[in-house]
Amino acid sequence: MNANTSARTRTAAQNAELALLLEVAGTPKPGNVDRRRDLSDLRFEQFLAGAVGAGEGLRDAEAGDPIGEAFERAVGGMAAGHGQNTQFGALLLLVPLVRAAIEDGGTLSPEGVRRVVEATTVEDAAAFYRAFEYCEVFVDDPPEDAADLDVRRGSEAVPALERRGLTLLDVMRLSEAEDDVAREWTGGFERSFRAAELITESEGPLSDRGARAFLDLLAERPDTLVAKKHGERVAEGAMERAKRTRDAGDPDAIEALAEAFVEEGINPGTTADIVAAGLFVALERGVEP
Amino acid sequence: MNANTSARTRTAAQNAELALLLEVAGTPKPGNVDRRRDLSDLRFEQFLAGAVGAGEGLRDAEAGDPIGEAFERAVGGMAAGHGQNTQFGALLLLVPLVRAAIEDGGTLSPEGVRRVVEATTVEDAAAFYRAFEYCEVFVDDPPEDAADLDVRRGSEAVPALERRGLTLLDVMRLSEAEDDVAREWTGGFERSFRAAELITESEGPLSDRGARAFLDLLAERPDTLVAKKHGERVAEGAMERAKRTRDAGDPDAIEALAEAFVEEGINPGTTADIVAAGLFVALERGVEP
Repeated sequence: MNANTSARTRTAAQNAELALLLEVAGTPKPGNVDRRRDLSDLRFEQFLAGAVGAGEGLRDAEAGDPIGEAFERAVGGMAAGHGQNTQFGALLLLVPLVRAAIEDGGTLSPEGVRRVVEATTVEDAAAFYRAFEYCEVFVDDPPEDAADLDVRRGSEAVPALERRGLTLLDVMRLSEAEDDVAREWTGGFERSFRAAELITESEGPLSDRGARAFLDLLAERPDTLVAKKHGERVAEGAMERAKRTRDAGDPDAIEALAEAFVEEGINPGTTADIVAAGLFVALERGVEP
Repeated sequence: MNANTSARTRTAAQNAELALLLEVAGTPKPGNVDRRRDLSDLRFEQFLAGAVGAGEGLRDAEAGDPIGEAFERAVGGMAAGHGQNTQFGALLLLVPLVRAAIEDGGTLSPEGVRRVVEATTVEDAAAFYRAFEYCEVFVDDPPEDAADLDVRRGSEAVPALERRGLTLLDVMRLSEAEDDVAREWTGGFERSFRAAELITESEGPLSDRGARAFLDLLAERPDTLVAKKHGERVAEGAMERAKRTRDAGDPDAIEALAEAFVEEGINPGTTADIVAAGLFVALERGVEP
């Protein structure tokens, strides 16, 4: 008898869940939770629970449920038990990517996921707003002419959405300038696919490759979560420090940067979200963990 | 708007998957893969993939599918992509525990899981044998009068099972003397529930508590996977060393034991399986990660 005679492959939803796990396992990942570092208010174990809990919503996306509804269910499951925002942004990227993987029959492409986000509706936008009721998400104040669309209002903002006739893609357009997850939605998931290339071209265990891609992405563009929390200047400084450390190529310096960022409260969460998306694309293309 | 207004709870299948993740994350866990240590032929990332892949079978167990079929699907999913045996034994404990959690309406008890295993059939036994075709599982030679029941024969052994009319519980009875996962089946999951108590009474992140329970269990009984691979004497020696190290309470000594066991190829996998079961029971009882 041979092992593997009945080998199966993972589904897109399983690859998305695995991408979340590989992302948080990757270390060192300066400023973020990883398998060696907790933050004061967020622990590695909560990310494991978040990934498992998100599974149902990811399977809904795979099964063809509306994108907004699948996202809302994924976030509700993610926050089950702890109520923490562990992977809100990552799920906002993974849900349309899972759908695109199914619709394109396995050939996941920027064009495919663009079609998925262009097909979103006002109902999807309403579900997205409801998802904010499951956990605290750090966001900026909305522009003055869009106070009625403040995501912190949760489902109370739904009538305003309906009145304005905004789809989920329209909502993303409103924040693409200050939020790089939204910018993925409006720009064909460019950096997610770029992360997938970095990961695919790299070597070693997939979580290590994710950690390296994280540093590469952080070195090329200021993280928008850091910018929202600490301002543009701090985000640019963090980018410069990541670039210098990456270019020096000294593993101890990367560990030291990880310690420093945690101490300073610099938490490049948006970059981590994009790495999770990149890990998913790499898994879908056959890279093994 | 308050976060958590719509908080959900995890399902039994999700708790089982999370238990697998928390088990492998726990460190130091002398001789086993953990978040800081890979073995030469088994990596942390493969355990993450194994846990995610097992999800479908665990949900089948929750939904009321036959125990054997749910187990076979869990193992097939676990091995998807890599064909490694990461959590075969743990799933053999978790599948009936998930079912018992559902049938008992949340009050998971030794009596409940005893009822589940007593209700298993010859069909469940056949599915268990088929599960061996998805990955290599380390087993002893069968007794001389049971060569036709060698699990390594996979589905080829099914006619012999049917001829002898053996249920899955009967099959477990055949190996309870040399396999402590089988002994859980025949003994009301005694050590799984004991592990749950150790974990519940302990403090800190749940993966740390799992690692401590691992050392406690290893210190009280020789690991049967170690005994199969290296003989009874080595398994007893490993137990003694675990006991001395645990009693000394020096974290560095536990790390040193972890290094030593990995070097010597001492891999107490059965004890890890029981810890995964204990983590599941603790999660079902409301302990949060």
